[in-house]
Amino acid sequence: MNIHPMWDQYPDMKKDLADVLTVIDESVTIRDAQARKIVLDLLHAGGKLLRPAFFLLTAKMGETYDRDQLIHVAASIEVLHMATLIHDDIIDEAETRRGLPTVQSQFGAKYALYTGDYLFCVCFKILSKYATALSTVEFNTETVERVLIGELEQMNSRYNTDMTVKQYLRQISRKTAALFAMSCHMGAELSGAGKQAKINARKIGHEVGMAFQILDDILDFTQEANTLGKPVLEDMKQGVYSLPLIYAMERNRAAFLPLLEKKGDIQYEDADEVLALVKKYNGVEKAKEVATKYTNKAVARINKLPESESKKMMLALTEQLLQRQS
Amino acid sequence: MNIHPMWDQYPDMKKDLADVLTVIDESVTIRDAQARKIVLDLLHAGGKLLRPAFFLLTAKMGETYDRDQLIHVAASIEVLHMATLIHDDIIDEAETRRGLPTVQSQFGAKYALYTGDYLFCVCFKILSKYATALSTVEFNTETVERVLIGELEQMNSRYNTDMTVKQYLRQISRKTAALFAMSCHMGAELSGAGKQAKINARKIGHEVGMAFQILDDILDFTQEANTLGKPVLEDMKQGVYSLPLIYAMERNRAAFLPLLEKKGDIQYEDADEVLALVKKYNGVEKAKEVATKYTNKAVARINKLPESESKKMMLALTEQLLQRQS
Repeated sequence: MNIHPMWDQYPDMKKDLADVLTVIDESVTIRDAQARKIVLDLLHAGGKLLRPAFFLLTAKMGETYDRDQLIHVAASIEVLHMATLIHDDIIDEAETRRGLPTVQSQFGAKYALYTGDYLFCVCFKILSKYATALSTVEFNTETVERVLIGELEQMNSRYNTDMTVKQYLRQISRKTAALFAMSCHMGAELSGAGKQAKINARKIGHEVGMAFQILDDILDFTQEANTLGKPVLEDMKQGVYSLPLIYAMERNRAAFLPLLEKKGDIQYEDADEVLALVKKYNGVEKAKEVATKYTNKAVARINKLPESESKKMMLALTEQLLQRQS
Repeated sequence: MNIHPMWDQYPDMKKDLADVLTVIDESVTIRDAQARKIVLDLLHAGGKLLRPAFFLLTAKMGETYDRDQLIHVAASIEVLHMATLIHDDIIDEAETRRGLPTVQSQFGAKYALYTGDYLFCVCFKILSKYATALSTVEFNTETVERVLIGELEQMNSRYNTDMTVKQYLRQISRKTAALFAMSCHMGAELSGAGKQAKINARKIGHEVGMAFQILDDILDFTQEANTLGKPVLEDMKQGVYSLPLIYAMERNRAAFLPLLEKKGDIQYEDADEVLALVKKYNGVEKAKEVATKYTNKAVARINKLPESESKKMMLALTEQLLQRQS
């Protein structure tokens, strides 16, 4: 199994995540060879598996746990994430994902549609076999609703040059943080945590997810020179405006409007100019402050948890988030 | 509630189906106004609700039942069907469905994608609340897998002028009959039926579903003059070849090939010619024989069931299927 090198320093977690991948591998029983290949390629492309990892860490904070059950629920979470990725790539008309050509760029949007649908089913299949209570399944579907509403909102607010910080935060709260929140909530539930502890776990997941997405959006503006401009160009073309841009626009909307109004016709040089303007108006710094705020909140919350190995690792991981370079 | 007039002669069923629609209505909690409208418009467009009806009939053959539970499971089945319809319309680039513009023609394929995803989740949400056992949920997801595999196969065999009767039957068995089979199987399960009775119920569902799909495909070749040629033209353009055409081609492949090879560029006059050729080579008659065979099998199987009101209605409905004109 091809596990992301970030887990090398945590051998137990690495073993758990390898087993999560094995479960997913075995659950992909679709006979269509091409669909099977698509799913397994994505699975083994070395994603960070952060959602199942946060689920496992939360679930192991209790006194006892059923490892087999946890591995399966963790697998269902990652499969759900994969399903949304494949469908998102259709919407974004993305060419690559995790360094590989996307399903939709290789086989067309229609194939990607069904492959994503198939994965939704695999998620519920795994979950229905291993969740102790139907309430776990129920919560899961409500999260998916929230994720989809976030995606719909993002789609409807494309090319919205009046987008506010508040609107952006609400969108990523649904689009990304909801799945992190669910992962931690389900972990707490399966660890036998009480009501208050479950709410707390959910908040940790939410804050980690918020920080994660903001940092992901920042990376588009800061990554190495050889790809610089490309992700920004793509987002401008699609009309997706993220936090660094929103903050920079607050300082000087008029400077950005002539560029953004080109919409789908925006050129590489325009994207470079957007990049320069975001830099000039400290968009990245302001966005980083917000990410730090969420990370600090999560760290403070994790710090209050009872001591355990899981707690230590969660703390280290969360602090590590802010140092993300890729 | 706008219930299809075919149910007017069965007031109890009509009441049940109205309640099924109410449950769906109340489960669509998505806040996005447009997505909500899309789902509710489709819901109230007056579909026949055959899948939930067959589920309810099977479920009521037992001695006792929990009506509230049955209504909810029936609702989850119809929602699942709606989700696959919306996604199918993306694949087929369909303009209308049940007389209304499709989601994808009105709001674009991307919106349709998420609305379908949302409905998948609503299905599992309703089901996870009301299924007595998780095994019901499990079976459900496996059926969805089968439906999707059927759709993938159909997609991959587009423009396949060598398609055989056997391949066609296998495709519709997955694409359509699997959901009818599941509906009857779940009904039998919830009625407390034994293993053999459940297998029997599943077979009835399969046979009814097969007959239903074949008759649906035949309608494209036989409906009123004012729409004649249009559905056939659409299918030829998309490379979807159904049973009447497959049978006619068995008689004289060479006559069809020059027309079908035009693929997406096929014209109205070409479709008329295809129609005339299918008529000449008795494609519709041969296809009707197969539909009758499936209907007769289902009728024989239903006849052996213990007497009940549900049995009588199922028998009448199944025989009525063969008289379908719309």
